[in-house]
Amino acid sequence: MVDSIKISVDAMGGDNGPRVAVQGARLALKERKNTSFIFHGRQAELGPLLDECPELKLVSTIRHCENVIAMDEKPSQALRKGRGNSSMWAALQAVKDGEADVAISGGNTGALMAMATFCLRPIEGISRPAIAAIWPTMRSDIIVLDVGATVGGDARQLADFSILGAALARALFDQDSPTVGLLNVGTEEVKGLDSVKEAARLLSGASGAGFTYHGFVEGDDIGRGTVDVVVTEGFTGNIALKTAEGTARQVGTYLRNALKSDILSLLGAALARKALSALKRKMDPRTVNGGVFLGLNGIVIKSHGGTDEIGYKSALGLAYEMSRSRLIEKIEDGLRRFPSTPVQAVPQPEAKPA
Amino acid sequence: MVDSIKISVDAMGGDNGPRVAVQGARLALKERKNTSFIFHGRQAELGPLLDECPELKLVSTIRHCENVIAMDEKPSQALRKGRGNSSMWAALQAVKDGEADVAISGGNTGALMAMATFCLRPIEGISRPAIAAIWPTMRSDIIVLDVGATVGGDARQLADFSILGAALARALFDQDSPTVGLLNVGTEEVKGLDSVKEAARLLSGASGAGFTYHGFVEGDDIGRGTVDVVVTEGFTGNIALKTAEGTARQVGTYLRNALKSDILSLLGAALARKALSALKRKMDPRTVNGGVFLGLNGIVIKSHGGTDEIGYKSALGLAYEMSRSRLIEKIEDGLRRFPSTPVQAVPQPEAKPA
Repeated sequence: MVDSIKISVDAMGGDNGPRVAVQGARLALKERKNTSFIFHGRQAELGPLLDECPELKLVSTIRHCENVIAMDEKPSQALRKGRGNSSMWAALQAVKDGEADVAISGGNTGALMAMATFCLRPIEGISRPAIAAIWPTMRSDIIVLDVGATVGGDARQLADFSILGAALARALFDQDSPTVGLLNVGTEEVKGLDSVKEAARLLSGASGAGFTYHGFVEGDDIGRGTVDVVVTEGFTGNIALKTAEGTARQVGTYLRNALKSDILSLLGAALARKALSALKRKMDPRTVNGGVFLGLNGIVIKSHGGTDEIGYKSALGLAYEMSRSRLIEKIEDGLRRFPSTPVQAVPQPEAKPA
Repeated sequence: MVDSIKISVDAMGGDNGPRVAVQGARLALKERKNTSFIFHGRQAELGPLLDECPELKLVSTIRHCENVIAMDEKPSQALRKGRGNSSMWAALQAVKDGEADVAISGGNTGALMAMATFCLRPIEGISRPAIAAIWPTMRSDIIVLDVGATVGGDARQLADFSILGAALARALFDQDSPTVGLLNVGTEEVKGLDSVKEAARLLSGASGAGFTYHGFVEGDDIGRGTVDVVVTEGFTGNIALKTAEGTARQVGTYLRNALKSDILSLLGAALARKALSALKRKMDPRTVNGGVFLGLNGIVIKSHGGTDEIGYKSALGLAYEMSRSRLIEKIEDGLRRFPSTPVQAVPQPEAKPA
């Protein structure tokens, strides 16, 4: 049994108000008893919600905070207005101060990334933080990053993402040397962007240092689960993630409509309802809710803003597992093992006189 | 009834040999009687295959050509070796010479694009050709481009793609002013790449000139069918396309496995087999086989290299519809209507002395 894990919750973030966070925590506590919570937000709203959940209340603290970051606030604006005095900031500060093991928010992603970067700072040796998605595949869950923290990215950033993603795979899946693939297109000659080709050279040279470099992968390799970690910059990664979500929803709609099309199919669907429910659970986006902010001096989980308590519970479960598996240590270990880490290589010329 | 459509077929392209092309044509002829074919490839292989299909043979010509472009040949290599003397080149040349209305190949995509660009040349006013995919969505089929001809692309290229995609939508879906969306990420402030932001300005100014500019769309808007034409550069477009294919395959596998999991589900699946077959047909990648090369002085359809005769038939049907709907005229019309077409604006400074 591990020590207790304390989760710092921005209870005001998300489209559906603080009830989702509190009820999600109630459900999460049932699954993992050794969890405790700090809820940041408005006492007047949180107090009554916690009163409804006596068991949760026993392991929870409320930290009153009046100021809430709006879902549509621009990151720079949010940082200006909410630094030091918003429920989002307070949730992050508790991790920085060592009061909590991990922070979670269902709020504005851009604002959360800006605040988290400002509050927790990137790990030394990592140029930019990334958002990693846990992606269910035909083989098992894999990690895809970056899915939205960056737009564009050079070879060094892609190498950093590989280190981060591999550390997350080691932490989450208990793998010694997860396979890493660079997302690319299939045309033989051009073989994608220069940054991706250059990253391939960096990763080939570093293969074995906490990960096994697989080579290029294409879009359909994600769902196939060809590698444990798929690395790309945030523009393409975000579009791939949302395209996959859209496609899954589309196929689900096709299936529902098809099964309603005639009486025999309706009857068949009724008989097969156990299988269809299992499928529905498997495809439920709530079961894999939660993006992991990687590369900061502290673990931050972003829950989907529009989720319900079931989805929030999943994100809290992810937060728990991240803390338990000592993710940050694994990232620092990965950085040490990466031969001539790109970032470490940069300051050297500065040390010499020109 | 329209005039007869003549399709120029690179019969040797594809993973599965010339039988797929010939059998695909046999099936396509059944659906559209006023089609005729020129098959380019090895007489010794094509002759016996056509002998098996007497009706097809009546409307077909074989043009012997010994040289075949390999599926793994680099585009530059293919162009050097196969220019003027390969079945792929001959198929394109027949369109250039006005002998055929449209060319089709299941061969090497990169080689086909290189040869098509060299042989047919880009339409004046279009900087780079693109590959468009017909994408089934919850609403209806839409067009997504570029899905693989380019890697990266500036605002002018994205504007060109919008003109091309809108013309294709007008041709294929009989729409007067199809809606066009630029694929982007959802973060509010950064809002994606500079090229995409600049393209948005160009398209806002041109909305109404053969298309209606909708604004930015995200990855999940593709499957939802939010707009008629989704525009992006080829790296992201290719990855989105393959990610969607992979996801659809993944969900299909989940469904099959779920329905085999217990006896009641098996029985239910048997009863619902009409609906499940309909779903299978709807999700069959062969029914939407065929990428359209857009922006050249001639219509070229790329069939998936690994498809069978059913898939090839779909690609031939697409080729037929493209010719019938006078796609090239619609593109030229779109270019004329686009206010100060980016490309037309470029030569002006050159005309003045510096």
